[in-house]
Amino acid sequence: MNPPTTFRQKLAAAAVQNDSLLCIGLDPVIEKLPAAMLAEDNPILRFTSEIIEATSDLACAYKPNFAFFGALGESGWHTLEMTLERIPSHIPVILDAKVGDIGNSAEQYARMFFEQLGADALTVNPYMGHDAVAPFLDYGDRGVFLLCLTSNPGAADFQTLRVDDEPLYQRVARQAQTWNNGAGNCGLVVGATRADTLIELRQLAPRLPLLVPGVGTQGGDLESVVVNGLDSAGEGLVINASRSVIYASAGADFADAARSAAIAMRADINGLRQPTST
Amino acid sequence: MNPPTTFRQKLAAAAVQNDSLLCIGLDPVIEKLPAAMLAEDNPILRFTSEIIEATSDLACAYKPNFAFFGALGESGWHTLEMTLERIPSHIPVILDAKVGDIGNSAEQYARMFFEQLGADALTVNPYMGHDAVAPFLDYGDRGVFLLCLTSNPGAADFQTLRVDDEPLYQRVARQAQTWNNGAGNCGLVVGATRADTLIELRQLAPRLPLLVPGVGTQGGDLESVVVNGLDSAGEGLVINASRSVIYASAGADFADAARSAAIAMRADINGLRQPTST
Repeated sequence: MNPPTTFRQKLAAAAVQNDSLLCIGLDPVIEKLPAAMLAEDNPILRFTSEIIEATSDLACAYKPNFAFFGALGESGWHTLEMTLERIPSHIPVILDAKVGDIGNSAEQYARMFFEQLGADALTVNPYMGHDAVAPFLDYGDRGVFLLCLTSNPGAADFQTLRVDDEPLYQRVARQAQTWNNGAGNCGLVVGATRADTLIELRQLAPRLPLLVPGVGTQGGDLESVVVNGLDSAGEGLVINASRSVIYASAGADFADAARSAAIAMRADINGLRQPTST
Repeated sequence: MNPPTTFRQKLAAAAVQNDSLLCIGLDPVIEKLPAAMLAEDNPILRFTSEIIEATSDLACAYKPNFAFFGALGESGWHTLEMTLERIPSHIPVILDAKVGDIGNSAEQYARMFFEQLGADALTVNPYMGHDAVAPFLDYGDRGVFLLCLTSNPGAADFQTLRVDDEPLYQRVARQAQTWNNGAGNCGLVVGATRADTLIELRQLAPRLPLLVPGVGTQGGDLESVVVNGLDSAGEGLVINASRSVIYASAGADFADAARSAAIAMRADINGLRQPTST
C-alpha cells in the first residue's frame, strides 16, 4: 500500500491501524495538571507528551486547541511545536483554531497552521463565506473542517435559525458539499449534543468527514453519533474527547487513567459500529 | 480629566487627541516590504516600527492582524509583542484575530489576547453564539468587535441570508446590542463595501462602535461610511485602512508615504464629519 499523501488517506490509515474513530483533544491548562507535573521545566509539554505516549495506539487523530497554547504566551508556541513533534507521524493532527478571515489574511493563517505548524487539518469558521475558506481548501492534501453545528448552547443564537426553508447549519453543510468538489478535503464540525441532526447532515453531505466534539464532558449521546454519523462505508467520523480523557485522573496516574478512558471510549464506539469496520 | 480606564474611553481620547477616526491596520508580509528592510535583523519589526512612528499622531487606533504575525512562526509572536510595544500607550490596539470558541476555550483566547498580548480590543466571530462571546465581554475594560457584515464577497454566502424577517447580519447586530448591556464594551465589524447597510445598523445599534475595514484597497465608499456610520454624538466610528497606508510606497520612502496617505485619509474623513467633531 502506498503511504498516505492526503489528510483523508492519513486519517483512514490511522483509523484502520488503531481500529479507532477516537480523536483525542489536547486542551492543557496549568490549573488542571497533576501536581507532579508542576515541578517540571515545562509542565504542559510533559503533560501532553505523556498523554500522547499513553494513547497513540488508540487514536485516529489528535486535536490540539490553539487557544490553550496561545494562552501561555510566547512559550506556548514552542510548547505546541514540541507537542506536535511528540505525535507519531502516521497519526494526523487536526489543529483546532476556528479561524476565518478575508482571502489575503486567510492565506497567512494557512501558512501559520499548515506550513509553520505542519497541521494535517484545521477547523475553520464559515461565517465569512467561500473566499475566507478557499485559501485553506487550496491545500488539497490538508483537511478543512468547517464549523457547522457546534456543541454549545450558543449554537441556537444563529446556527439553527431558519434561512429560506432550512436551518443555517444545513446551508453551511450544503455549501461545504459544493466547496468540496475539487480536492475533496472539506469536512464539518457537528457537536455530539446535536446527534439527531446527523441524520439530515449525512444526507446532505454523504461523504464529508464529520468531526464530532462534545461526547465526553459535554454530555453528547455517543450511540446517536455513531449510528447517525457514519458514512455508507462505515467511516467518515472523527469523534473527539478532550477533558474526559486527558483529565481522567488528577493524580500521578493521569497517563494510565487517560489510556483507560481512551480504551473504554474506543470500545464503546467500536461496539456501535457496523460489522464491516472490524 | 481622569486617564481613560476602558477601551471606549481610550478610543475616544485618542480620537480627540489626534482628531482622527482613522485606524491603521498592520498586516505586514515579507514579500511586500521595501527592499531596504530586508537587510535588517527583523525586517517586519523594523517596518511596523517605522510605520507606527510615522503615523502615531494621526491614528485613533492600530489594528494588527494576528494572521500576519502567526505566519512568521515562533518568531512572529515576539515580533508582534515588540510591535505592540512601539505603539504609544495612549493609542488603543484592536487585535484582529476573529476568534470564537466554546466557553472554556474562549477564556483561553481572552488570556492570550487581553492578558498575554495586552490588546485593548479584539475582533470576535459570532457564529457560535453568546457563550462563545461572553468570556471576552467579561473583560469590561476591553472592547469586543463582533463580525457582523464583512467586506468580502463571501459575506453573501451566509451573512446576508434572511432569517425570519431580517438578514442574518442584522440579527447579529441586534444580539450584540443586547449582549452589550452590561459593560457597554461590544462593537461591530461592518465592511465599507456595504456602507449603505450602515443606516439600518445605526438604528439597530445606536451607540455601538463600528469598526469599518475595506475603505482603501477593497474600494469601499468613504462618504457613505462616514455619513451613515457616525453615531448621534458624531463618534462611534473606527475606519480602518491597512494596505493603502502601509504599502503606499514600496520604496525607501515608505514611512513618509504612509504618513502622507494617513494624513490624506484622515482629512477625507474629517471633511465628511459633522462640525461638532472639530
